[in-house]
Amino acid sequence: MTAYLLNDMTWEEVRDALGTVKLAVIPIGAHEQHGPHMVESCDAILATKMANLLAEEMYPHIIVTPTVNMGISQHHLNFPGTIALKPDTLIAILKDIVTSLKHHGITRFLFLNGHGGNQSTLNVASTVLSTEEDVEVYYAKTTGSAKKAVSENITSSIFGHSCEREVSEALYLAPSLIRPEKLTKGDLNERGRYKQLRPGRAIQGFYRYEEMTNNGNIGDATKASKEIGEKIVWEAIENIKSSLEEILDCKVGSVY
Amino acid sequence: MTAYLLNDMTWEEVRDALGTVKLAVIPIGAHEQHGPHMVESCDAILATKMANLLAEEMYPHIIVTPTVNMGISQHHLNFPGTIALKPDTLIAILKDIVTSLKHHGITRFLFLNGHGGNQSTLNVASTVLSTEEDVEVYYAKTTGSAKKAVSENITSSIFGHSCEREVSEALYLAPSLIRPEKLTKGDLNERGRYKQLRPGRAIQGFYRYEEMTNNGNIGDATKASKEIGEKIVWEAIENIKSSLEEILDCKVGSVY
Amino acid sequence: MTAYLLNDMTWEEVRDALGTVKLAVIPIGAHEQHGPHMVESCDAILATKMANLLAEEMYPHIIVTPTVNMGISQHHLNFPGTIALKPDTLIAILKDIVTSLKHHGITRFLFLNGHGGNQSTLNVASTVLSTEEDVEVYYAKTTGSAKKAVSENITSSIFGHSCEREVSEALYLAPSLIRPEKLTKGDLNERGRYKQLRPGRAIQGFYRYEEMTNNGNIGDATKASKEIGEKIVWEAIENIKSSLEEILDCKVGSVY
Amino acid sequence: MTAYLLNDMTWEEVRDALGTVKLAVIPIGAHEQHGPHMVESCDAILATKMANLLAEEMYPHIIVTPTVNMGISQHHLNFPGTIALKPDTLIAILKDIVTSLKHHGITRFLFLNGHGGNQSTLNVASTVLSTEEDVEVYYAKTTGSAKKAVSENITSSIFGHSCEREVSEALYLAPSLIRPEKLTKGDLNERGRYKQLRPGRAIQGFYRYEEMTNNGNIGDATKASKEIGEKIVWEAIENIKSSLEEILDCKVGSVY
Amino acid sequence: MTAYLLNDMTWEEVRDALGTVKLAVIPIGAHEQHGPHMVESCDAILATKMANLLAEEMYPHIIVTPTVNMGISQHHLNFPGTIALKPDTLIAILKDIVTSLKHHGITRFLFLNGHGGNQSTLNVASTVLSTEEDVEVYYAKTTGSAKKAVSENITSSIFGHSCEREVSEALYLAPSLIRPEKLTKGDLNERGRYKQLRPGRAIQGFYRYEEMTNNGNIGDATKASKEIGEKIVWEAIENIKSSLEEILDCKVGSVY
Amino acid sequence: MTAYLLNDMTWEEVRDALGTVKLAVIPIGAHEQHGPHMVESCDAILATKMANLLAEEMYPHIIVTPTVNMGISQHHLNFPGTIALKPDTLIAILKDIVTSLKHHGITRFLFLNGHGGNQSTLNVASTVLSTEEDVEVYYAKTTGSAKKAVSENITSSIFGHSCEREVSEALYLAPSLIRPEKLTKGDLNERGRYKQLRPGRAIQGFYRYEEMTNNGNIGDATKASKEIGEKIVWEAIENIKSSLEEILDCKVGSVY
Repeated sequence: MTAYLLNDMTWEEVRDALGTVKLAVIPIGAHEQHGPHMVESCDAILATKMANLLAEEMYPHIIVTPTVNMGISQHHLNFPGTIALKPDTLIAILKDIVTSLKHHGITRFLFLNGHGGNQSTLNVASTVLSTEEDVEVYYAKTTGSAKKAVSENITSSIFGHSCEREVSEALYLAPSLIRPEKLTKGDLNERGRYKQLRPGRAIQGFYRYEEMTNNGNIGDATKASKEIGEKIVWEAIENIKSSLEEILDCKVGSVY
Repeated sequence: MTAYLLNDMTWEEVRDALGTVKLAVIPIGAHEQHGPHMVESCDAILATKMANLLAEEMYPHIIVTPTVNMGISQHHLNFPGTIALKPDTLIAILKDIVTSLKHHGITRFLFLNGHGGNQSTLNVASTVLSTEEDVEVYYAKTTGSAKKAVSENITSSIFGHSCEREVSEALYLAPSLIRPEKLTKGDLNERGRYKQLRPGRAIQGFYRYEEMTNNGNIGDATKASKEIGEKIVWEAIENIKSSLEEILDCKVGSVY
Repeated sequence: MTAYLLNDMTWEEVRDALGTVKLAVIPIGAHEQHGPHMVESCDAILATKMANLLAEEMYPHIIVTPTVNMGISQHHLNFPGTIALKPDTLIAILKDIVTSLKHHGITRFLFLNGHGGNQSTLNVASTVLSTEEDVEVYYAKTTGSAKKAVSENITSSIFGHSCEREVSEALYLAPSLIRPEKLTKGDLNERGRYKQLRPGRAIQGFYRYEEMTNNGNIGDATKASKEIGEKIVWEAIENIKSSLEEILDCKVGSVY
Repeated sequence: MTAYLLNDMTWEEVRDALGTVKLAVIPIGAHEQHGPHMVESCDAILATKMANLLAEEMYPHIIVTPTVNMGISQHHLNFPGTIALKPDTLIAILKDIVTSLKHHGITRFLFLNGHGGNQSTLNVASTVLSTEEDVEVYYAKTTGSAKKAVSENITSSIFGHSCEREVSEALYLAPSLIRPEKLTKGDLNERGRYKQLRPGRAIQGFYRYEEMTNNGNIGDATKASKEIGEKIVWEAIENIKSSLEEILDCKVGSVY
Repeated sequence: MTAYLLNDMTWEEVRDALGTVKLAVIPIGAHEQHGPHMVESCDAILATKMANLLAEEMYPHIIVTPTVNMGISQHHLNFPGTIALKPDTLIAILKDIVTSLKHHGITRFLFLNGHGGNQSTLNVASTVLSTEEDVEVYYAKTTGSAKKAVSENITSSIFGHSCEREVSEALYLAPSLIRPEKLTKGDLNERGRYKQLRPGRAIQGFYRYEEMTNNGNIGDATKASKEIGEKIVWEAIENIKSSLEEILDCKVGSVY
Repeated sequence: MTAYLLNDMTWEEVRDALGTVKLAVIPIGAHEQHGPHMVESCDAILATKMANLLAEEMYPHIIVTPTVNMGISQHHLNFPGTIALKPDTLIAILKDIVTSLKHHGITRFLFLNGHGGNQSTLNVASTVLSTEEDVEVYYAKTTGSAKKAVSENITSSIFGHSCEREVSEALYLAPSLIRPEKLTKGDLNERGRYKQLRPGRAIQGFYRYEEMTNNGNIGDATKASKEIGEKIVWEAIENIKSSLEEILDCKVGSVY
């Protein structure tokens, strides 16, 4: 094995892996519309792919759990096919995973999250589980830390959902998520509440995605490329790996 | 498309499919130990494969949702790697899926369940969701109705978990779930509470799997074959399809 | 005393009984329509009577708690008078009983259940309470194990609710539950979803009882007799007693 | 019939009764120690008897439901046999009864409560159910309004639990609840927190019953008599009946 | 400092105070209409003022927490501005305060309550928290024990909400709560359910305040005075202090 | 009146105000340690002051509710006096306020939040309440948008809790919150998990405040001034006001 993936292991293999595993990575996605050119499972698939890469990089110290393949998508619910978990449901799932794995001796967890809409719920889960279950719970947006690659390659003023960044990641990690013949820019509305509620404004709050975009995506997916995706993915993987190593107080590869 | 799988569709494709879709199939698995010769995700994988076959058979009337890839596995929790959802968590997930899809116009659901331990919780979910959400909720054990193929091909007195039946299904549907070099019989304990608590006895109740089997499986997986698996799978698919057609009051292929 | 019944004991008598009591029996019934010839409390009364008989048979090792006299009856709710507990409510009641009696030193419990509709919820309760409260929780359908007496005496193809079996039990245990002048066959519908959803079919799921029967009962109560009831009751009592003795690892009457 | 008791009725009889029924009475008791001379079910039995009397008096306008035979008894839990429902559990039961009967057309309810420890929870239930379920929910302590009979016949300074008042009620309504040879005064402690926490003091709060009494009862049960019980019971029945008639805006016996 | 008020202390000051503090007082109010002459925060303000007085009287043994400034006001909800917490919400708040302060070493609590409508919920909270969190939880209606001052100074047959008693308390403790030019008698309805449901009647239950009074208050606020308020307040403070001293088994001022 | 503050209004005044009110502002604080130089209620007091200023600025279109004076402070719980609400508790409170005011006709809400630790829970509340209660729910960190004033006046690399920014705000809005003689810099730890988990890093997650600072504050409060506070406060008020006006689609002062 070159990476510990719970889905692909027998109990005897897990038993043996637990000797070196220091942290479990829980990939978390969403099941929601991503405009005309991405399929609805993409957040779950990309989170899984990122988790698997991280597990390879940090082998044998990390183990990847089954993916939480739905998330907080209430704002996309008026687009067909979207499924939204309530925040309480997502926290309940995470609690069950964490307490089950704690039973097996794992006490440190990273929620590796592919969907921005999950972040606040994961923050709440981190607080609740860390204090009530006596574990360490971290979370990260999969490629949120790839600031250099993003600033050098992404030009849309509003991006972050089925845009050139996300489509690039998919072209590198899982190109079957893309309908190449459908790639298109976000069809943004000229006005609406959303303009006052974007990150960085004085006020935040819930709005529905169709208030912002008619076709369900933002940014400009026609500018996406596998090469951009590769840069973003690896900058993020390196950042997460580096932070985890500090947190786990271990250089991967060191003797235990 | 030859089958409607929500994971692989864009929102525009879902919108178009909803014109003929009469029922959503929610595959439900588990993440639990399956002895030395099956990986822990097998219930989830097999349920997904069965759902996909059913969707092909009943195209364009059925749509498959993302898989619920963990379940009620408290009885396996002392084997490394097992993850157990609380029954309330599983019901909450199913409620969120059902109410989300009802928002899109779907009112009939089949929980296609690969794990026996989920059945009671799914019965409860069926009652609760049918009465509180004004939908029709059915559930089925994936190959539970393949009585003929089972009676003709399965010989162990106690079977049902990583046995010749389940391994045969995997050999046909997803052979990568199997460690062929590890195939072995269940190492059953001679005595224990479990003998009084198996299906058909006067009393039922919770017991832990290690009370029954030392290696985590039962039956005799060395007798499994792809051919047996194929027979079981298709007898079950035909039975489920036949029942669904009656329930949906439609012959698939008929004009609407 | 010839049987320990909590309802009829003072606290000093309970204190003394706890020296030999090994298990508490919680009778569980329902409050639901039973057709024109049985009153609505019959499941609760019959479960109570069975529990009391069992307590006599296994004196001084068993104690009977107050009866849970309502249950999961959503499927009967369109018949006047039916009361339905939510599954969560029933589990909450059982948790409170179990944890209260655990406070008094009892750690083994049998839910003796008179109503088929409760079985799945009791399975869930058994899992949840066994794992979360560190107790042993068993459950049994009162006369579900009387297979010989049933196969020899019951002839209706569909039976199980206010039928010749249940009415026979009542004629033996509590004849006041019966309106003799009203005894009648189930007035079954010719077609309907229920035909696909009965036990043993490929699919299961919630349906309302009026989809199946116009008068609320099934089977043929006119064939009931006290004699049949007596056979069923005692075959079941013997089976439950035998299983319990094995589980409790004691021959009743042995020295402790 | 001279009283409508749901336990003893078939669905057809309930259907016919609903033509005149204006209110459902839900008897609520407890399962808790009552000293050496009363059995633990007495609150449930006495509430049931009172409800049945009221149903006779107000026939055909009132129907009695199954009894809630356990209640809020945390303060008695250190005496063997006591079972305590959590307040949330009791409210959940009442909600399920109320919503079930509302489905049958009943919108007014009286919780007829035999156990003082339930009163606050019933007040909460009255508020919650009245506002959330659009029904009228009343509650009454069974004999709480018999002020004249109590003031003339009860002499203990502290009474209210297995005392001369409650034992008198039992002697009249259900003498089998009493162990006549065990009748005794409460064995009160000289000091303790309870003295500051009794009704009428500046502060209230939870204390355990063994802080107050060593044998579990208070008052002086040796002064109880069937005659006192009869006076108390009928003064209370008349008061409740009178108030209900005003509330229901009907003189019983009037033409509808 | 002459009183420990958590709101006005730094963590170092709290740390030092904990050396002598034996009990935390949690002021609880409501946010609800109080007729034309009192503002809606009055219950919260009066409870806070009373808590502060008590803290001065019992310094350094008592510490006052932030005020719970909303409560159980469903019965006032049809008057503009009223905010009603669900009983479960109020209990959740109290649980969080109690468990947080228990973390700091405080195990005894007094809910000092300014709003009659909260009393039953506080009784439930007292039971639940005392038994589940291993603390002592008491509660008191702020001026409920001032029986002498009330009987000598209050003449309205129905009083208790924005009446001469409550307005007098405000004139003494927080006169800005009063609109002096608006002082008026309660405009009571001649008939209605409320007449059967007032304290002391055979039946109790939820009714809406507009069923009883058209202007939202009862009693006769024109008879209120600061002097009456002062008498009521100090009689109550003395009573609560006296009871607390007994309960805490300490004479304030004694050496520890 | 120059500002609508629910705490200070009678129901008749609220009734009249509702004619022009378009949005309710709910001030939300915390009760937590703020180092040696600020009292523990400061987040609640500052949020209240900011809400009141906003209500003056946007009179008569805004009404301020009672303050939620505790919040999500689990990370400060090891400092004496801190009280932490569970996220579910905070959401329950907000739901009760929102649904109560919706009953009075208000459908737009702003959570004006003084405590950074509440932000994720408020995001979750915004999603849940907006979708389940059919209202518009916004939230804002009180002075989070004062980016210009902060960048020009705040120099500490790590700030945000009892630092020169927050102390400056207090010096302007509520100087009694400050212990001037205690003003001090944060006593930061040299190393620890917190360095990997600060905003902007690849990973986030729960850590306890004492891991970061020994005295409970960060930044350098000795650099605070009333003048800085005034600039920050008014830049933020103007930003929030401007955004709200856009969202409410009204210029304040315009005719309705």
